[in-house]
Amino acid sequence: MKVGFIGLGVMGRPMALNVLRRGFEVGVYARSDTAGSLVSAGAASYGSPAALAEVSDVIVTMVTGTSDVEEVLLGPRGIVRTARPGAIAIDMSTIAPRATARMAAELARHGIQMLDAPVSGGPAGAENATLTIMVGGDAEVLGRVRPILDCLGTTVVHMGGHGAGQTAKACNQLALLVTTQGVAEALALARRCGLDPRAVRRALLSGLAASRVLDLFGGRMAERQFQPGIEARLYHKDLHIVLETAESVGQPLPAATVVMESVDALIGAGKGRMDLSSLIELLEPPFTGTK
Amino acid sequence: MKVGFIGLGVMGRPMALNVLRRGFEVGVYARSDTAGSLVSAGAASYGSPAALAEVSDVIVTMVTGTSDVEEVLLGPRGIVRTARPGAIAIDMSTIAPRATARMAAELARHGIQMLDAPVSGGPAGAENATLTIMVGGDAEVLGRVRPILDCLGTTVVHMGGHGAGQTAKACNQLALLVTTQGVAEALALARRCGLDPRAVRRALLSGLAASRVLDLFGGRMAERQFQPGIEARLYHKDLHIVLETAESVGQPLPAATVVMESVDALIGAGKGRMDLSSLIELLEPPFTGTK
Repeated sequence: MKVGFIGLGVMGRPMALNVLRRGFEVGVYARSDTAGSLVSAGAASYGSPAALAEVSDVIVTMVTGTSDVEEVLLGPRGIVRTARPGAIAIDMSTIAPRATARMAAELARHGIQMLDAPVSGGPAGAENATLTIMVGGDAEVLGRVRPILDCLGTTVVHMGGHGAGQTAKACNQLALLVTTQGVAEALALARRCGLDPRAVRRALLSGLAASRVLDLFGGRMAERQFQPGIEARLYHKDLHIVLETAESVGQPLPAATVVMESVDALIGAGKGRMDLSSLIELLEPPFTGTK
Repeated sequence: MKVGFIGLGVMGRPMALNVLRRGFEVGVYARSDTAGSLVSAGAASYGSPAALAEVSDVIVTMVTGTSDVEEVLLGPRGIVRTARPGAIAIDMSTIAPRATARMAAELARHGIQMLDAPVSGGPAGAENATLTIMVGGDAEVLGRVRPILDCLGTTVVHMGGHGAGQTAKACNQLALLVTTQGVAEALALARRCGLDPRAVRRALLSGLAASRVLDLFGGRMAERQFQPGIEARLYHKDLHIVLETAESVGQPLPAATVVMESVDALIGAGKGRMDLSSLIELLEPPFTGTK
């Protein structure tokens, strides 16, 4: 089984490497000049998604947004031009659930099966192959590509039909972002009251308020290390998907709406490329955004 | 060392029992008729906080609010009337940080040392002696009572002077409550989109959104088990302390403010005695409160 990877960023590159290391034949395509380390490790590089798809049984996409996925799947040089009937496209980007379902229908007309399979776990999870993978689409198709997904993560969960993986990922980002705001408010309050945020974080980690967010982002907040990590602007994109999805089904999300205001303010303050943990800076004087 | 316990509710009762089981001589006082099981287990029962304090080296209070603590410590039948100079009062209730500091000063004038030592871990933590205990006050005094606190929890952290334990607890409740709202919004969105909230919870538990709140309250939300647990009205009290503390130091807390509106709405809907996990019901049609 030959696996093509499209998108070799902070997530896609270590994921492709993990599949390669487990003995699969891997081909890659990346818009920018990032294929080098994969080629050194034994992957073949192709000049377009279409060229890669021509020789692949499975094509994994790990790009940024909905329009990026549309371009590499359905664009003029997209995989739909050349992929063989029976090929499987696994989109592991985080994009809008409804757009995914539309793309899956379009690919199906060309005999290409699609799964949406976004992940949680961040760059560390990608490197250590400990990602959680939330899958939408046909269960039988998932069964066929499971050996590949097992190279990438420790938890692969089938959530339902096309788009269900993206919906689960939206729920994940929603819980994660609201939790991050809560941790930021807790540690900002601690500091403002004269407590050591590092001691407060340690105490909270052993109680009911414990979370991976408190551990990871709370640690960066307490140590004031705001280099990414994952850039805040990417969470902004995800939160947009969350609110758009909620809007489409009439779901009120009062806390997520407040967090969107904070993330907007962060980006407005020119900190979109900082780590999400810099949300705490909005809560500290002098205030640059949300009140 | 004789230990007096004041307040034998869902937290205080198992805590007193744990100290008794570890071989300490224990006396108890409770306003309502809840001392029975402690007496059967070997504790002595007293008719007032003052009567209990007369025979105790250490007095532990685990009652509801600031005014309850004031009454048992400083009221007409309070421990201040009879406690021996050198006695130590450990208040493990969750109350306002600034009120704690005032009470500690008043007790000190009578030769009584006070520690604020609120806990996280809930009824299960109280029963299994796995509480996290956040302590404010004199470190030397903490050293003297540590053998008692070690009967109650696995993590005892000295946070600073009088009130610092309560401030840390406020930060804990803030993080916990905002996280709970985030989990409620995530599982409500999942359900509204046709996903199984139980499957979504399981998937999220293995990723970056994992938290003890998702595990515990998320489990109750997914299974729709809204019996407490800890009643929502007690978290309302805690959130009031959080916002009051934040106000006193000029700390904006946008997400906590939104959660307060939700908890207010929950209580307004007559659900104050349900488990905090019933916050998710506000997000489901027909809406009874927050939008």
